[in-house]
Amino acid sequence: MTKLRYAMVGGGRDAFIGAVHRKAMALDGEFEFVAGALSSSPDKALASGRDLGLADDRNHADWQALLADELKRPKTERIDCVSIVTPNHMHFPVARAFADAGIHVVCDKPLVHSSEQAAELAAVVARRGVVFGVTYNYTGYPMVREARDLVRSGAIGEVRKVIVEYNQGWLATRLEETLQKQADWRTDPARSGIAGAIGDIGSHAENLVATVTGLELDSLCADLTTFVPGRRLDDDGNLLLRFTNGARGVLIASQIEVGCENDLRLRVFGSSGTLDWHQEEPNTLLHSPIDGPRRVLTRGSAWLGEAARRATRLPTGHPEAFIEAFANVYLGVAAHIRALQSGAAPLPIEADYPTLADGARGVRFIEKTVESARSEHKWTRMD
Amino acid sequence: MTKLRYAMVGGGRDAFIGAVHRKAMALDGEFEFVAGALSSSPDKALASGRDLGLADDRNHADWQALLADELKRPKTERIDCVSIVTPNHMHFPVARAFADAGIHVVCDKPLVHSSEQAAELAAVVARRGVVFGVTYNYTGYPMVREARDLVRSGAIGEVRKVIVEYNQGWLATRLEETLQKQADWRTDPARSGIAGAIGDIGSHAENLVATVTGLELDSLCADLTTFVPGRRLDDDGNLLLRFTNGARGVLIASQIEVGCENDLRLRVFGSSGTLDWHQEEPNTLLHSPIDGPRRVLTRGSAWLGEAARRATRLPTGHPEAFIEAFANVYLGVAAHIRALQSGAAPLPIEADYPTLADGARGVRFIEKTVESARSEHKWTRMD
Amino acid sequence: MTKLRYAMVGGGRDAFIGAVHRKAMALDGEFEFVAGALSSSPDKALASGRDLGLADDRNHADWQALLADELKRPKTERIDCVSIVTPNHMHFPVARAFADAGIHVVCDKPLVHSSEQAAELAAVVARRGVVFGVTYNYTGYPMVREARDLVRSGAIGEVRKVIVEYNQGWLATRLEETLQKQADWRTDPARSGIAGAIGDIGSHAENLVATVTGLELDSLCADLTTFVPGRRLDDDGNLLLRFTNGARGVLIASQIEVGCENDLRLRVFGSSGTLDWHQEEPNTLLHSPIDGPRRVLTRGSAWLGEAARRATRLPTGHPEAFIEAFANVYLGVAAHIRALQSGAAPLPIEADYPTLADGARGVRFIEKTVESARSEHKWTRMD
Amino acid sequence: MTKLRYAMVGGGRDAFIGAVHRKAMALDGEFEFVAGALSSSPDKALASGRDLGLADDRNHADWQALLADELKRPKTERIDCVSIVTPNHMHFPVARAFADAGIHVVCDKPLVHSSEQAAELAAVVARRGVVFGVTYNYTGYPMVREARDLVRSGAIGEVRKVIVEYNQGWLATRLEETLQKQADWRTDPARSGIAGAIGDIGSHAENLVATVTGLELDSLCADLTTFVPGRRLDDDGNLLLRFTNGARGVLIASQIEVGCENDLRLRVFGSSGTLDWHQEEPNTLLHSPIDGPRRVLTRGSAWLGEAARRATRLPTGHPEAFIEAFANVYLGVAAHIRALQSGAAPLPIEADYPTLADGARGVRFIEKTVESARSEHKWTRMD
Repeated sequence: MTKLRYAMVGGGRDAFIGAVHRKAMALDGEFEFVAGALSSSPDKALASGRDLGLADDRNHADWQALLADELKRPKTERIDCVSIVTPNHMHFPVARAFADAGIHVVCDKPLVHSSEQAAELAAVVARRGVVFGVTYNYTGYPMVREARDLVRSGAIGEVRKVIVEYNQGWLATRLEETLQKQADWRTDPARSGIAGAIGDIGSHAENLVATVTGLELDSLCADLTTFVPGRRLDDDGNLLLRFTNGARGVLIASQIEVGCENDLRLRVFGSSGTLDWHQEEPNTLLHSPIDGPRRVLTRGSAWLGEAARRATRLPTGHPEAFIEAFANVYLGVAAHIRALQSGAAPLPIEADYPTLADGARGVRFIEKTVESARSEHKWTRMD
Repeated sequence: MTKLRYAMVGGGRDAFIGAVHRKAMALDGEFEFVAGALSSSPDKALASGRDLGLADDRNHADWQALLADELKRPKTERIDCVSIVTPNHMHFPVARAFADAGIHVVCDKPLVHSSEQAAELAAVVARRGVVFGVTYNYTGYPMVREARDLVRSGAIGEVRKVIVEYNQGWLATRLEETLQKQADWRTDPARSGIAGAIGDIGSHAENLVATVTGLELDSLCADLTTFVPGRRLDDDGNLLLRFTNGARGVLIASQIEVGCENDLRLRVFGSSGTLDWHQEEPNTLLHSPIDGPRRVLTRGSAWLGEAARRATRLPTGHPEAFIEAFANVYLGVAAHIRALQSGAAPLPIEADYPTLADGARGVRFIEKTVESARSEHKWTRMD
Repeated sequence: MTKLRYAMVGGGRDAFIGAVHRKAMALDGEFEFVAGALSSSPDKALASGRDLGLADDRNHADWQALLADELKRPKTERIDCVSIVTPNHMHFPVARAFADAGIHVVCDKPLVHSSEQAAELAAVVARRGVVFGVTYNYTGYPMVREARDLVRSGAIGEVRKVIVEYNQGWLATRLEETLQKQADWRTDPARSGIAGAIGDIGSHAENLVATVTGLELDSLCADLTTFVPGRRLDDDGNLLLRFTNGARGVLIASQIEVGCENDLRLRVFGSSGTLDWHQEEPNTLLHSPIDGPRRVLTRGSAWLGEAARRATRLPTGHPEAFIEAFANVYLGVAAHIRALQSGAAPLPIEADYPTLADGARGVRFIEKTVESARSEHKWTRMD
Repeated sequence: MTKLRYAMVGGGRDAFIGAVHRKAMALDGEFEFVAGALSSSPDKALASGRDLGLADDRNHADWQALLADELKRPKTERIDCVSIVTPNHMHFPVARAFADAGIHVVCDKPLVHSSEQAAELAAVVARRGVVFGVTYNYTGYPMVREARDLVRSGAIGEVRKVIVEYNQGWLATRLEETLQKQADWRTDPARSGIAGAIGDIGSHAENLVATVTGLELDSLCADLTTFVPGRRLDDDGNLLLRFTNGARGVLIASQIEVGCENDLRLRVFGSSGTLDWHQEEPNTLLHSPIDGPRRVLTRGSAWLGEAARRATRLPTGHPEAFIEAFANVYLGVAAHIRALQSGAAPLPIEADYPTLADGARGVRFIEKTVESARSEHKWTRMD
């Protein structure tokens, strides 16, 4: 089977997440990296492409040149999709342009800066019929998919409460002053958007809850704080949540919790059972039924559901981790692209990935969180 | 050294916490159980006293008779203190009467039903100069005391954030319908007070935060819910907290989280370090300094502070647990009583126990939590 | 119900385990401490008794005086049992004398120095019909009893393999040079016996295996080492085990494993399931059935067996620990004593405690381990 | 930088480990998969190659054809290396032939069936000067490399004792009867060699000890058992170890421990500290210094050594796992190949991978283990 050709925008030297995307796409042999515009700095873009072995004629100084060049190429050679891994503020123009050109898109989160942008992007995507994936990568973990299936199957009864936490500590000091690249743009409103921790990681937490529970947020009450003097965006956020079915929730997203690395944890409490998943030990899902002892579900086990099994590469005890979860998102996108290319109408079961709707909902969540935090009357409806 | 004589009010057949108090008092040989009025039901009171080997003339049908009888006895025989382990609504009249009679008091939490009662009780206690301990037992754990010392010593810098959770699941169904004694009175406003989970366990969480951090609560925003149909008090509470120093917090107290047993956890995030303690593994305290790896502090280790060492009976790895923590509270009370009895003016260092002020602050916390939850404007000042 | 009166031999100032025994006996109100000979040093013995509030006429300079005095007292006042918590070499003479006087005995482990002594003691005990408990305290943990019941019930099929480890690190340096009392006598062959770590903690491991699995040891192959220069007894032992049913095993007992506290762990592998218990988290037992996920069994849960439930004081999540396990051994002894005193012939179900037979088997285990380690042909039959 | 071209022998449909090797080689973009002979069954070999997108002219029915074809190709097109992922019995002939043809080799473990084969292979490799890696993949984990560095740096003093366990349960029943491919060949002496569990996973354990500690094995005492009726090789092995420096050890390798997945754990006890690493949570290494609390070292932290940092792709808390460790072995091989190709004489620091010497030592370990288990006199010198 031939590989899908992809270009990357962003992800050059000093970037972090671009390399993760490339490794995730390389892992299963579904994608081939053929073109790029890897930095907003033309020199760095070209140097980065050479580092990574891009052919000179497909290594571009900016994304406009990349797009123009691809459109000149015959379909048999043109990229199938683009992976957008720039700082947030570039997601919108790049994604819109490539989608509008009929090229499938994978874009990092948070999707765009505003619900208006999200709506405009959605219109383009719908018109052109392209595949659009958003790399809420944590939903790619097999045990997250198992959790989703368990909730859907009724294994824990009706969901009553959710606690989701995303605890990090790497911004507990003013790291951006050192010009560390990740800290630099994430704390800059022009590039990051209206929110700091809430946008960067709170949006992952929101997506994880929505994906696993299927619950719809009704309203929220947010307390956002900037602890590090001189920082321009929130570095800590704590929210109370209410869902339309009456469930309640707590969402914590912080980047000043010293000693916390990438401590994303989701607990879902139902009327007859509880699920507990922790990103730092992703191969395990704890399930506590109301009428028996806690069950330690592990990736690769015979008793897991179909979705978790499909997302699994290795036997139990041979841990899979962050890159594999990322790769699962890309496998979902690939399955969808291949289904479209082969003319197969219905979405295949393998096309399991976060979509533009997830991205748009995430933008809405950020907007409402900031609105709640800024208002006097804190509880804010999602409308 | 002669033992301190005590009487117990409440804690008869079918009770849970009374036996814990008795075991805690027996553990270290400091107290001798000599009298009681062990139930609000006279027959059960007398039968319970016989079960426990009380002499007939000190085994009473009600607490008034107990008090009257003790006051008739010579000082050399009279009880030194009373332990009050009734349902909440009886704390106030019993505590006030014994304190007013000059008998030292240990009372379970939450202290009383209202701040007015707390103030009245405080006045009596002050006038009579009796020792008054409140069994916020979790503060008796050696590693909680170590946490307190680490915060005070500046080991984690300035406290920025607190997450405290008290997760239980035993009231996820309508257990009170079975007349299970613990569920029955805890879900009855007449006996439990204005709050359910928040009163029963949220108050422990509040006390743990205050004890360890020394922070003063400025305001709170609470969401209280009753999930189990027909229940009259909240069984789930989630709060955002603001402290007077600018620190923020999240407090979770729930009794409907299936599979959670007695999952009390405190995390304190400072500008240069983090502490993490978990009641279900109480011999361990995690300390994450900002400039090095996480340190696993264990009870009994040579490198712990004085307060943790004083509260320790066994070497490392020989676990101590719930009853020992409880006993530590009682040892603190005993040290205070003995200091008063011996005429030693200053409070000895061993007199490390939660006081009436803790109890009163806990009542205020419950009142403000309920006020916030009921109001339209959710953020409520502690004033 | 009147308390059982007990005397203690050993356990004075500077001792460790004597205080544990006293707290364990105090915990449940079954025992009353009335007499003692608390040290081999007469002065220290008397001073220790005064510390602990013994009446002068029952506080003795040596155990012979204690015994003589008790035998002069009327039965209504005489001790019911003696608790022997001396260094090992005194177990035999003291236990024999008290048993021979018709007084029930609880003795610490390892029981005596040789199988000959064990046999002589057994003869005395049988002749006088006294209760004789050996404080293999770890078998008192509720979850150990649950493990035993699960094995017996066939829940894990036929036992194929056992791994038992007792990892400590406190003797990784030559602590005995400091005259630290615990290290001093444990490394002295005259007081400790022919074995060091194997006698002190290996014997606990042996007992735990035998208690939980009921398997009989067929032969063993031991490697004993003394790592710390100048030390006279082994401080590290590693054994291969074969059982009469064909099961195999590994036993590790070490006191030089730096950083290990009291890390006793037992894993039992059966043809259809596995059990895993860890003393440092004693309220949990892991059960892995062959056809489903691992089950986390916790003390106090409704789905545990009768023996675990009987040994439990507190609800789930309210941890019990070392002293409670110790106390459970004493409760078993107390039940047996009371049954004999009341003339009830059959042993009550509550009389669940390690007996003289456990003690004797433990002595045999130590002898054979040392024999194996010293021989050229390492595999040694238990005969 | 151009990719290294590789062929694979073995690893076709139904195989497990071949796909892992391919993903590991794909991950970092260092290798390109260009040719193969993917099964011992010609039809399956060709079908498997087509599945994976091999060009028809480089997709071969057997390894001899593959080798012959490659040797006909110009150097600019020829494979740089071969990856051998067949059942064990094919390692020797294939590795010898490719090495003899001057092609670099990566071969799975255990290397070959006998020390004679290992010696012959070593002679060929030395004569032709090819790079030869053996995929003891667990040594590729960053925290294993950190452990190695800590031992070498003296952080734990002199090594006194090692406990290494490799606990699996997947062969607790006679899975080979179902013709499950992994079970089938591993339990067949003709394909697996003289040992079962000890060869398959015990050899990993031996390698992990040797790699981390640098200790040389002096002698061993082994107990091998076949628990599952009808099985022809051992499925459980327990060993006592002695090292030339006086250190002692225990090695456990079992495939009948129900509920164990891939539970490889190494503990190294030194005179002044202890290390503890667990493959199922590979991003963490516990370090217990003798004079302070346990330190939780995590992959990606600033305070780790150079080797661990070089082997790391993602920030702390973003877990890496099995495939990344495998890829690190391949990165080491790639660095060595590139150094040779560029004429750089000294081995670069990045060339961190298990070599033929590791493989040969592993074969010797298996032979001696089986010899010990079969002998009457169990302790066997490594000579």
